[in-house]
Amino acid sequence: MTLDATLSRIDADMPAALDRLMALLRIPSISTDPAYKAECDRAADWLVADLASFGIAAEKRPTPGHPMVVGHVPGDGPHVLFYGHYDVQPVDPLTLWDRDPFDPAIEETPRGRVIRGRGASDDKGQLMTFVEACRAWKEVNGTLPCRITFFFEGEEESGSPSLIPFLKENADELKADLALICDTGLFESRVPAIMTQLRGLLGEEITLTGPDKDLHSGMYGGAAINPIRVLAKILGNLHDVAGRIQVPGFYDGVPDLPEDIAQQWQALNFDHGTFLGGVGLSQPAGETDKTPLEMIWSRPTAEVNGIIGGYTGDGFKTVLPSKASAKVSFRLVGQQDPHAIRESFRAWVQAQLPEDVTAEFHGHGASPAGQMSTEHPAFEQARAVLGAEWGHDAAFTGCGGSIPVAGYFKTILNMDTMLVGWAKDDDQIHSPNEKYDVESFQKGIRSWARVLDAIT
Amino acid sequence: MTLDATLSRIDADMPAALDRLMALLRIPSISTDPAYKAECDRAADWLVADLASFGIAAEKRPTPGHPMVVGHVPGDGPHVLFYGHYDVQPVDPLTLWDRDPFDPAIEETPRGRVIRGRGASDDKGQLMTFVEACRAWKEVNGTLPCRITFFFEGEEESGSPSLIPFLKENADELKADLALICDTGLFESRVPAIMTQLRGLLGEEITLTGPDKDLHSGMYGGAAINPIRVLAKILGNLHDVAGRIQVPGFYDGVPDLPEDIAQQWQALNFDHGTFLGGVGLSQPAGETDKTPLEMIWSRPTAEVNGIIGGYTGDGFKTVLPSKASAKVSFRLVGQQDPHAIRESFRAWVQAQLPEDVTAEFHGHGASPAGQMSTEHPAFEQARAVLGAEWGHDAAFTGCGGSIPVAGYFKTILNMDTMLVGWAKDDDQIHSPNEKYDVESFQKGIRSWARVLDAIT
Repeated sequence: MTLDATLSRIDADMPAALDRLMALLRIPSISTDPAYKAECDRAADWLVADLASFGIAAEKRPTPGHPMVVGHVPGDGPHVLFYGHYDVQPVDPLTLWDRDPFDPAIEETPRGRVIRGRGASDDKGQLMTFVEACRAWKEVNGTLPCRITFFFEGEEESGSPSLIPFLKENADELKADLALICDTGLFESRVPAIMTQLRGLLGEEITLTGPDKDLHSGMYGGAAINPIRVLAKILGNLHDVAGRIQVPGFYDGVPDLPEDIAQQWQALNFDHGTFLGGVGLSQPAGETDKTPLEMIWSRPTAEVNGIIGGYTGDGFKTVLPSKASAKVSFRLVGQQDPHAIRESFRAWVQAQLPEDVTAEFHGHGASPAGQMSTEHPAFEQARAVLGAEWGHDAAFTGCGGSIPVAGYFKTILNMDTMLVGWAKDDDQIHSPNEKYDVESFQKGIRSWARVLDAIT
Repeated sequence: MTLDATLSRIDADMPAALDRLMALLRIPSISTDPAYKAECDRAADWLVADLASFGIAAEKRPTPGHPMVVGHVPGDGPHVLFYGHYDVQPVDPLTLWDRDPFDPAIEETPRGRVIRGRGASDDKGQLMTFVEACRAWKEVNGTLPCRITFFFEGEEESGSPSLIPFLKENADELKADLALICDTGLFESRVPAIMTQLRGLLGEEITLTGPDKDLHSGMYGGAAINPIRVLAKILGNLHDVAGRIQVPGFYDGVPDLPEDIAQQWQALNFDHGTFLGGVGLSQPAGETDKTPLEMIWSRPTAEVNGIIGGYTGDGFKTVLPSKASAKVSFRLVGQQDPHAIRESFRAWVQAQLPEDVTAEFHGHGASPAGQMSTEHPAFEQARAVLGAEWGHDAAFTGCGGSIPVAGYFKTILNMDTMLVGWAKDDDQIHSPNEKYDVESFQKGIRSWARVLDAIT
């Protein structure tokens, strides 16, 4: 009865809920760009006011960067902490947007109504599905179904520099029985997915130097070493013909896929043709003996995310450059140790340098993979009720990306995290024309009502 | 008597000659960048005016690109055509320059006075050595020593797109007994060198496309092909471990070095340690079975002159890019056919593309190697008199670079070319902080006076 009334209330309130989301989307809270600092602050204020509008006392909490928003609602039953982030990615190149990214609109498309604008999916729209579910629940029942802590971050898209200190300083306050994070998507845009395997991430920047200045290839070409060629050769050696990464010890700690998970994933009938076809590809390009789902969920990778050297402008310049550099990242799984791999990668590069070429390394982030424990009863409870909303049984899935906050909740607060979200594959997060389906928004709100009902 | 008076006049006029060169260097005539089109035009105007200032009627002649400057001086004796180019290379990276590249200055250095600025050596300073020699000769003697055609190009650093049509359309006007080109250097910065072997040049730009948009490496990494990795692999395959180029048929038409030339070069006692040490290197990096002089003068090369793909700004972005591209050039020798090699290279790249990756090619210049005939008596006459100016006997040498115009003079005008110049190895042409020694400039002017005296 309580749930049905709440779901009805959610449906009836959709126009107002959409208006509220639009108001939040109009705030250009780009966290990585200092020019938008006041806007991040404004987004935090907006959230505090919105929680207050249905009787939840929250406050903006300062950090050396953008503020956190924290609110507590006492109650019986399990104590859950809900995390979302109110900051968004930059919008460049602006010319590829069909509208002002911060003047959002509901658009009718052949595949349904969408909310178009930066942050619609990542993560303002997703964050608001939980807030709206709580609002409806409270309006129908007068209270929330359990003890809830609201915790919103404003630096997720810029490396979360304040997150670890904030968690450490406020550990007693933030510790709950379980964290809920809404920053992931449906499997194949239709199957509700609880992500339990997350890859880690290691970033390395290499700069090779050969000659101490740029040279004329007519005068020196043939006798002087070219660092672009050396870098290309090394990066070309990163994978063998079977797609395996050649850095020594790289696969230490990479587990075989457990048989039960392998069967679950097999049952998902992943359509890699559609997945790759959506971006103009046809063939899975990873390890030749692995399935496409393994490639993106449970296998480690090495990628070159950027490369530059020599003359790259219009026309031609027969320069033999002094330097060439590349940004290389590794997605990590299981027990792979990012620090050990960083050292091994650097040694592996060094060992391939010919005479007269030196390498400088600059380390970027290093986070291990995360394996979510699913022991908390909420996991099975949630999985059991999500099917009713979406018409597909929910699945425990993997995720190719990294959600570092889930790892911090575990290591700093000793709290497990349930990752569930309603984004679709074509939401174009981090890209121009980001959108969130109105279906994701409405069913997402309803899903949270079902989950809150199930776990309490 | 005439020569001595002219040499004295040259020495006396040095301050004014340097002022004139500085004025020309202040014009940023970067031919490859359309933003500098008006500046190229201005450099041509400046040269017309400068020739007029000592009574030589020249004119700016339009082309679809930057203009030519052509002037004729009637006279007795051999008819020589002097060629130089007034355009210069781009100046990036600007941060590596110690001064504004187009605000030239005379600097005192431990190794003597130098003229610092873009184009000081390549080729404005060298071009002006001939102009100043003619000016002094005319001021001392009232006339020039022989019939001379002045011919200055403004597209040498951008592939000379207008040169062949211009030579063909004006063949009767431009044909002379011998061409003189001042765009080369002293051997080991001290021995006057008449270059008789020149490598050709072939430029290719490759762009590989994988996914049809930039992807998030968390979502797609492992399953989607990365065009940077494919490009690195291909470029890493360009040479084998012995430094030989792997493009099929590449060595067709590459001659063995004739025994007499090999002996001549042996006698030069080339100090590759000093040559490479000057740019921070120690080991010759070419074919392991060839001498360093062969590597730079008589062997073909393949170099990557530029590469770019993915995110190359500050920080890190885990993008899996849609495109990656590289500029590749080949130095050619003997009878190597640039067009055949272009086709073979493209086929070789295509054959290495995995599924889902496509390549686009953009061809840049294609000029075969040149072997100068030294039959014209001017070659021996010039060689005999240059020693007096420089304190070393002049030598017939090879050259690693390409001077395509010498080939066109032969094929279109049936005219041999004598290549002689005064640049030094450390002039940093095409690089930041380009310079030309004041010694090169002054002795260069005096050298031309000696050559003009000897050949008439």
